[in-house]
Amino acid sequence: MTNAYDRAGYSRIPIEFGQRPAVLAVDFQASHIDPRHPFGGRPLALRALENSIDVVKAARANGIPVAVCYTEYHHRDEMPYWSLATVDQDNSDGNLRGSPASVLDPRITDRDYDHVVRKTGPSMFYETTVQMFLTKNQVDTVIVTGVNTSGCIRATVIDSFQRGYRTVVPEDCVGDLEQQEHDDNIRDMRRRYSRISSAAEVIDYLKRCKRS
Amino acid sequence: MTNAYDRAGYSRIPIEFGQRPAVLAVDFQASHIDPRHPFGGRPLALRALENSIDVVKAARANGIPVAVCYTEYHHRDEMPYWSLATVDQDNSDGNLRGSPASVLDPRITDRDYDHVVRKTGPSMFYETTVQMFLTKNQVDTVIVTGVNTSGCIRATVIDSFQRGYRTVVPEDCVGDLEQQEHDDNIRDMRRRYSRISSAAEVIDYLKRCKRS
Amino acid sequence: MTNAYDRAGYSRIPIEFGQRPAVLAVDFQASHIDPRHPFGGRPLALRALENSIDVVKAARANGIPVAVCYTEYHHRDEMPYWSLATVDQDNSDGNLRGSPASVLDPRITDRDYDHVVRKTGPSMFYETTVQMFLTKNQVDTVIVTGVNTSGCIRATVIDSFQRGYRTVVPEDCVGDLEQQEHDDNIRDMRRRYSRISSAAEVIDYLKRCKRS
Amino acid sequence: MTNAYDRAGYSRIPIEFGQRPAVLAVDFQASHIDPRHPFGGRPLALRALENSIDVVKAARANGIPVAVCYTEYHHRDEMPYWSLATVDQDNSDGNLRGSPASVLDPRITDRDYDHVVRKTGPSMFYETTVQMFLTKNQVDTVIVTGVNTSGCIRATVIDSFQRGYRTVVPEDCVGDLEQQEHDDNIRDMRRRYSRISSAAEVIDYLKRCKRS
Repeated sequence: MTNAYDRAGYSRIPIEFGQRPAVLAVDFQASHIDPRHPFGGRPLALRALENSIDVVKAARANGIPVAVCYTEYHHRDEMPYWSLATVDQDNSDGNLRGSPASVLDPRITDRDYDHVVRKTGPSMFYETTVQMFLTKNQVDTVIVTGVNTSGCIRATVIDSFQRGYRTVVPEDCVGDLEQQEHDDNIRDMRRRYSRISSAAEVIDYLKRCKRS
Repeated sequence: MTNAYDRAGYSRIPIEFGQRPAVLAVDFQASHIDPRHPFGGRPLALRALENSIDVVKAARANGIPVAVCYTEYHHRDEMPYWSLATVDQDNSDGNLRGSPASVLDPRITDRDYDHVVRKTGPSMFYETTVQMFLTKNQVDTVIVTGVNTSGCIRATVIDSFQRGYRTVVPEDCVGDLEQQEHDDNIRDMRRRYSRISSAAEVIDYLKRCKRS
Repeated sequence: MTNAYDRAGYSRIPIEFGQRPAVLAVDFQASHIDPRHPFGGRPLALRALENSIDVVKAARANGIPVAVCYTEYHHRDEMPYWSLATVDQDNSDGNLRGSPASVLDPRITDRDYDHVVRKTGPSMFYETTVQMFLTKNQVDTVIVTGVNTSGCIRATVIDSFQRGYRTVVPEDCVGDLEQQEHDDNIRDMRRRYSRISSAAEVIDYLKRCKRS
Repeated sequence: MTNAYDRAGYSRIPIEFGQRPAVLAVDFQASHIDPRHPFGGRPLALRALENSIDVVKAARANGIPVAVCYTEYHHRDEMPYWSLATVDQDNSDGNLRGSPASVLDPRITDRDYDHVVRKTGPSMFYETTVQMFLTKNQVDTVIVTGVNTSGCIRATVIDSFQRGYRTVVPEDCVGDLEQQEHDDNIRDMRRRYSRISSAAEVIDYLKRCKRS
């Protein structure tokens, strides 16, 4: 409680785990994971992938819903006005349909179990079936994993929060290009929207929420 | 272009102004402006208010749509799971119905001209009539002003961006409790979602877009 | 199964009740209930009100969430392009702010218990906090009551359905100006989106779902 | 003006054409068009297809945006609780991924020009990029064509209306299994939400709105 935010009341109410969680995994696709792409293969992203694999496995083992998304554009009409040049490239680094950069890492997804969605905005909730999937499963607690903390994670957390979910970010399951941006966004999300947690705490919680 | 983000393609495509702008003013209410409240009256918020007053006046003088919002809860059922304690307080610092902390600064709003909405989430778009208002006015460019850069501004900019608007943030029209958080979020938004501009540039642009 | 729709597969899958219901009450306001207004006080609307009062009372007695809405416009900028002239009138029959036509019938609402929202479109879900309220209460089954069957009920049922809720319409809790339009819309909703039920069946169900 | 609705103010305000239209074509897929499917090939659906082909051609010739959708489910988790059995079938009549019943009629779509989206609910706006596409094109007027009048057309018209678009339904460009249900829904939409028009009137209008 030494900064202006915390003195003013930020970060003060702990976000408690609810009774019916789901796990979201955001954009673990080649763009971020494969070092052949411009921002692929950064250490924090790889760490997030490793830990998130453990989390989604624990979810599946306990009957907890898992939703996984990737970003890809079927045509440019679907694309918002990005300042980020990479997504719009026609080459194999872009995220236009069929690009290898949009392919999900196979270790994160079990297509027989997960709800897999394509998204076009930063938020995994934006014009996808994710909320319907959560509704059908009566979810009250959303665990957000993926990349990047300063991009699609921040956007997904805001949407999860404002739609009324208890929102949890296991810090070691989200990653970014650089430590500084990762930390800055964890700081902002902790103050307002979410419980900052860890893979270990979340896995323990998922076991307690086992669904038959 | 000296950081890992810009080398990888972030910040590379300039977001150009479109043809039909609107101005949004987010949460210029006593919570943020009046120093009697826990995070009210911070220098960056007051600077944002002063500059935003000039921007909304220019908008009105040129027939450009203006929408203004404040955050207030009619009852706790409307409230997401905030870690920020202040909003939930029953006293005059909280944002429950009737609290003085939710009153808009009179200098920012012309109720005979502006589209004034109450919001309950961080984003000014979340469950409000703002997008319908923009649609009816065929807006393609959204100028975002208000507070705080690291909270409701960041959330509103993400939503404006992903809904397909050209999104502009005049840096001197948004504010926060502290300079560091303000700068961090301007950095993140510039890389992906928005043109970082100034009151002076925006006012000049609004004059060129005069609607009869 | 004698019509072309049912032969082709419509109406074939029964929509079962889920485990966690909520009751919605749509537009039981003077416009529809009070005979001094142009379409107020019609027999089917009054019948719907009487039966819905029993349903919301049963919901409250059993700890089931209740949300109630009314339609009102704070200014014309919030209004979609209605062909229905009444809503846009400046007089006491219109639905502009402060008009008596927008006042909820006091028998339908317990403001200490219900989630009361103002809406601007036909659907009770459109830009309101209703879905957030349902999310916070982990609702999977939505009981829709109110008026008119051929207007806001149809719109609310479509939204409830497509968002993934089990949707139930107690036929005697929704009403309209005329029997024909009521019946036509019940027919269309039964084929696709909802269980057509009754106040008696719903009240019995709500008792079985008692929340502590 | 001989019915209770019109006497009470319904149907009274003409919905005028705006300045920037777009054309939507809803679900002209084999389920509805090909007589080998349970409700395929009905006369009103075929009539709607023929007339809508003329409308989308006129739109393309004049630089007017066109968006086309079909309904298909990648897995059952995406499916709302349909009472309509057909969509959920595993055979070639169902709308699960890869079924021939979900294939768009090739005459309605120009994939080099149109914005083609997959949808999962009745409304073409529900969790699709349609509104973003309209926003990027500064559309104020939405022409709705497709099938069925009593299903996805009604749902799409409600959403277009409540989002603030001037909504136009060319009566001969929408169709259904039976004339009665078609007429009933045209009646309800005319009273509240939309201009009921014709292919001829719309084509003439699109020519006047030519975009360079």
